[in-house]
Amino acid sequence: MLRFGLLGAGRIGYTHGLAIQNLSEACIDAVFDPVDEAAGRIVKLSGARQAGVEEIIADPSIDAVIIATPTNLHAGQIEMAARAGKAIFCEKPIDLDIDRVRACLEVVAETNAKLMVGFNRRFDPNFVEVRKQIDGGAIGEVEMVQITSRDPSPPPVSYIGVSGGLFRDMMIHDFDMARFLLGEEIVEVTATGSVLVDAAIGEAGDIDSAVATLKTASGKIAIISNSRRATYGYDQRVEVHGSNGLVSAENMRATTVTVANGQGYQTEPLLDFFMERYAVAYQAELAHFVKSVIDDGVVRPNGEDGLKALELADAALQSMRGGTMVRLG
Amino acid sequence: MLRFGLLGAGRIGYTHGLAIQNLSEACIDAVFDPVDEAAGRIVKLSGARQAGVEEIIADPSIDAVIIATPTNLHAGQIEMAARAGKAIFCEKPIDLDIDRVRACLEVVAETNAKLMVGFNRRFDPNFVEVRKQIDGGAIGEVEMVQITSRDPSPPPVSYIGVSGGLFRDMMIHDFDMARFLLGEEIVEVTATGSVLVDAAIGEAGDIDSAVATLKTASGKIAIISNSRRATYGYDQRVEVHGSNGLVSAENMRATTVTVANGQGYQTEPLLDFFMERYAVAYQAELAHFVKSVIDDGVVRPNGEDGLKALELADAALQSMRGGTMVRLG
Amino acid sequence: MLRFGLLGAGRIGYTHGLAIQNLSEACIDAVFDPVDEAAGRIVKLSGARQAGVEEIIADPSIDAVIIATPTNLHAGQIEMAARAGKAIFCEKPIDLDIDRVRACLEVVAETNAKLMVGFNRRFDPNFVEVRKQIDGGAIGEVEMVQITSRDPSPPPVSYIGVSGGLFRDMMIHDFDMARFLLGEEIVEVTATGSVLVDAAIGEAGDIDSAVATLKTASGKIAIISNSRRATYGYDQRVEVHGSNGLVSAENMRATTVTVANGQGYQTEPLLDFFMERYAVAYQAELAHFVKSVIDDGVVRPNGEDGLKALELADAALQSMRGGTMVRLG
Amino acid sequence: MLRFGLLGAGRIGYTHGLAIQNLSEACIDAVFDPVDEAAGRIVKLSGARQAGVEEIIADPSIDAVIIATPTNLHAGQIEMAARAGKAIFCEKPIDLDIDRVRACLEVVAETNAKLMVGFNRRFDPNFVEVRKQIDGGAIGEVEMVQITSRDPSPPPVSYIGVSGGLFRDMMIHDFDMARFLLGEEIVEVTATGSVLVDAAIGEAGDIDSAVATLKTASGKIAIISNSRRATYGYDQRVEVHGSNGLVSAENMRATTVTVANGQGYQTEPLLDFFMERYAVAYQAELAHFVKSVIDDGVVRPNGEDGLKALELADAALQSMRGGTMVRLG
Repeated sequence: MLRFGLLGAGRIGYTHGLAIQNLSEACIDAVFDPVDEAAGRIVKLSGARQAGVEEIIADPSIDAVIIATPTNLHAGQIEMAARAGKAIFCEKPIDLDIDRVRACLEVVAETNAKLMVGFNRRFDPNFVEVRKQIDGGAIGEVEMVQITSRDPSPPPVSYIGVSGGLFRDMMIHDFDMARFLLGEEIVEVTATGSVLVDAAIGEAGDIDSAVATLKTASGKIAIISNSRRATYGYDQRVEVHGSNGLVSAENMRATTVTVANGQGYQTEPLLDFFMERYAVAYQAELAHFVKSVIDDGVVRPNGEDGLKALELADAALQSMRGGTMVRLG
Repeated sequence: MLRFGLLGAGRIGYTHGLAIQNLSEACIDAVFDPVDEAAGRIVKLSGARQAGVEEIIADPSIDAVIIATPTNLHAGQIEMAARAGKAIFCEKPIDLDIDRVRACLEVVAETNAKLMVGFNRRFDPNFVEVRKQIDGGAIGEVEMVQITSRDPSPPPVSYIGVSGGLFRDMMIHDFDMARFLLGEEIVEVTATGSVLVDAAIGEAGDIDSAVATLKTASGKIAIISNSRRATYGYDQRVEVHGSNGLVSAENMRATTVTVANGQGYQTEPLLDFFMERYAVAYQAELAHFVKSVIDDGVVRPNGEDGLKALELADAALQSMRGGTMVRLG
Repeated sequence: MLRFGLLGAGRIGYTHGLAIQNLSEACIDAVFDPVDEAAGRIVKLSGARQAGVEEIIADPSIDAVIIATPTNLHAGQIEMAARAGKAIFCEKPIDLDIDRVRACLEVVAETNAKLMVGFNRRFDPNFVEVRKQIDGGAIGEVEMVQITSRDPSPPPVSYIGVSGGLFRDMMIHDFDMARFLLGEEIVEVTATGSVLVDAAIGEAGDIDSAVATLKTASGKIAIISNSRRATYGYDQRVEVHGSNGLVSAENMRATTVTVANGQGYQTEPLLDFFMERYAVAYQAELAHFVKSVIDDGVVRPNGEDGLKALELADAALQSMRGGTMVRLG
Repeated sequence: MLRFGLLGAGRIGYTHGLAIQNLSEACIDAVFDPVDEAAGRIVKLSGARQAGVEEIIADPSIDAVIIATPTNLHAGQIEMAARAGKAIFCEKPIDLDIDRVRACLEVVAETNAKLMVGFNRRFDPNFVEVRKQIDGGAIGEVEMVQITSRDPSPPPVSYIGVSGGLFRDMMIHDFDMARFLLGEEIVEVTATGSVLVDAAIGEAGDIDSAVATLKTASGKIAIISNSRRATYGYDQRVEVHGSNGLVSAENMRATTVTVANGQGYQTEPLLDFFMERYAVAYQAELAHFVKSVIDDGVVRPNGEDGLKALELADAALQSMRGGTMVRLG
């Protein structure tokens, strides 16, 4: 039985706690959250005890921690847990500052800690199947990846300021997905963005609509388009074009129902809450983590993946600001 | 150059005339229609001359006739044309009375005339492809056929009385399609019907909604559902289930456009006018006829096919009235 | 906390047990299964104790029972539990013999017991949404229902003999669905069937392919087609045609992935295991039962629904054998 | 009757000639093609006379010319026809050299000639409907346009050298489509490309895969992706995201047939020949031209549209070469 400490029991922390409890080979042993009610929900679910962060990390009976605290605490908690010999699952991002991320990953490397970063989309059954089709040779050599990713509605403007901006907060998932699907490192980034959804986002110094074009050394190309608004639900699609064909993943709906009449044929909007859309992915990423820790196997996406995605986000921002292509690596 | 006489230049006659003119190896040479304006449109299109039915059929320079006159004239004109040695394309049905059809087909047999009956749906590219997939072994042995056929809106009630009723007027297309897809003769018919769309249709002695179940000697089954109303357009679908799979043909729309918003995803209604929905089929059936006449090849669907479909319609009516399965042959 | 006794812990019993354990307001308190390993899985899941059927039913601390034993035991256990004042959830069917069902329902009526019958499909989110659209007026007055229901592969021939035959074992779900969607009682049944999938099924006295046509007093029509084989997965579709439109539910797949190449566009086969296809429905039906018991609300589908579906199955069998329409009620 | 001179009767010239002949208010009166067989096909179709370019343009009985000669002749023939007072339909592009285009358009302006440029896609029923939905307010304010445009297979390498390169030869259609859908002029262009399909294309100095990002002054964004290869057919899709929704046009197939079996559900590849895919568009664009000339209405796309698309192509090339965003206007 793999015993977990859960650091942070908000919305996403609770999801991770539930995922752990649904696994027969793991359990939440201790939980920390400054909001007593949040911690209490985990206690009720799992019978875990409440404890402080330091206490949890110091506890030798705890094998692994889930870090679901605010972003600015991630790097420090990773370092602490790494030094205490814990296996670590950390919500993305490691940090919004790339130097801080690099410093943190040095500690991870020195301590030889197992660190997984929560790019949940890699575990979505649709995207997993896309990757599997590529690996199985269904489309030949990958040539071009198209990722469409649109949120149902923008976050509160108050969040924009601490988010790190669209590239680091939202498109970072797509940067990771592009790497996952391209199967090659990206060497060139070009990006642009606009304020089209909400002028207040622009006033807060960010954009709400953006496009990035990525290229690998061998010339493979990925295109990402993002918007903070999609009236029809949470739009999450990928297409991978290869030398022998195309593999794509479409959006998800709650039902398969169609209503037809004189106006036409109508299906329902897409699932529009990310935790519902990616419910299976959230469960699967922790199942992967638990299995990898128990089998002492390779953990992916890892700290390096987290770093690469952030590098791409920073490059995109630089490209947009300078009106130029940015070369990486 | 195959020279045609066109008998009847109403809506469907005009369509056939246009189809002939679009073929490089055939032309309309003479046209008859009691409505001068109707005949005139064909004259303008093709340079054909206007003439009487007897005159056209007697003209030795005319190779073939298209019969697109009212149903009650079909059988007599077929017989006349057969005796004059013409190749004959006749709009369905040959007649609403089965004995009249049999008598007519005897003349066709005696004169060895080439007769094609206008079951246009056999030439629809979708249904042709379904048949081709079956023939190519894509689904193994055919087991069950499902045909959904729903008109956008009922004909005028005045027409109901002379139509022969839903089974002979509307479902007759589906009886022919069932035979086309089953590839085996039908030996059992069960049918039922209701008046759900318009009470006036019931008062005129007909039904507007109906279902028939057909079975072949080897046990293959076809199900047909009909309605005189479909608010969403002209609903024309088939499914063929076989021992190794399923082949189906879906409906047709004018465009591939989808509009998505908070209410969901909406596509346009189906093509709702039969002459637009089956535009390609109307052209292809006459191309087939012309080619068969020129090559002296087999013509299908022929008089026998017309007879069989009418037998099924009569059996369906008998089954509905008696509340029993009706055995054929 | 509603305390359950679980009678029968095979595949479906386990599913029900899991559904109960996932509810915060109910638990499995005791379990019976002659196979120790089956009962043991429930013990491990829930901490329930193992006990005999009589003992469980006699235990006053137990509020409700789930009957998931072999079909021939259902009626007797329902009666026993009804007399002991338990709320009862019984897997379908109550019995294969209609007189036995009627006798059992008399006991249920006398004892005023709350009895729910496990027609799980009424709780499938797709079919629930279809019903909701009808209730919301999206298609006007219901006119025609089309149900396509095809199993991935036939059961073992050894099962055919005890199954009650295709109408009572397989199409019974569709009879209940037809009633659910028509919203009116059925008064006429016509059915036919064939042996197309496996001759051994015919030798065992059953059919493997069947069609039934149902009609209500007001003329609404339902058509059901069944096959014991579908190479492409578990085919479960409904269409409801109404005076103002059509509402339909399509099949379900594990992912939304498409692969396109020179051969065309390919999506994966359908979910093909009924417990996976109806996973949400199994959970939802027990949630409904628990809620209804706690709130003392109406339970549906109930014993009467189970009886009506069996009457339709018997009528279909009679129709097929006699080659006639069978009138009910 | 509008009388046309047809300059060039190759594949595309023949298509235009046929389109004219199918219109009741226009005819081909004279045709020029150095290949006698090509001119002959038009003569047979229309009864037109063969004549030289100068002779046709000088003929006062000719109202309009269609220029479907090789690209390098377009500008000169436009100028000649403009000076002779003809209405002019010219295949795209006017010229591959932007200064030559500008000079030509000056003559058009001076002579006040009516000039239409053959961006046929603006007349495709799918894209027309997309534009109509935008105009009707279905998606609110346009924010982001995504255009996917992939040819079934690359042209002969020998053509690459005279094509002007991918941006001027292939993506030019998408630049025009972006302008058509954005409804605003583009002020920023960023592009990149790769050689992924055929190394020989690279050796000929061109690319075969490319992406461009366009932005308008108000911040609206268009993304275009191109490839010279698509194994699954001719991939031609657009998506337009707006403040209130999304409108998209999907690809076209010859039939609606699906085959399902143990491998999944398969539909046929896309229509893969551009003249078949855009058959309706080719007819509609000339119908528009004829109508506009007869009614003396506005002709679009005009010379200015041709110029703007070429400016975008040149800017894209410059952006790719320099690794920078290029500002227009």
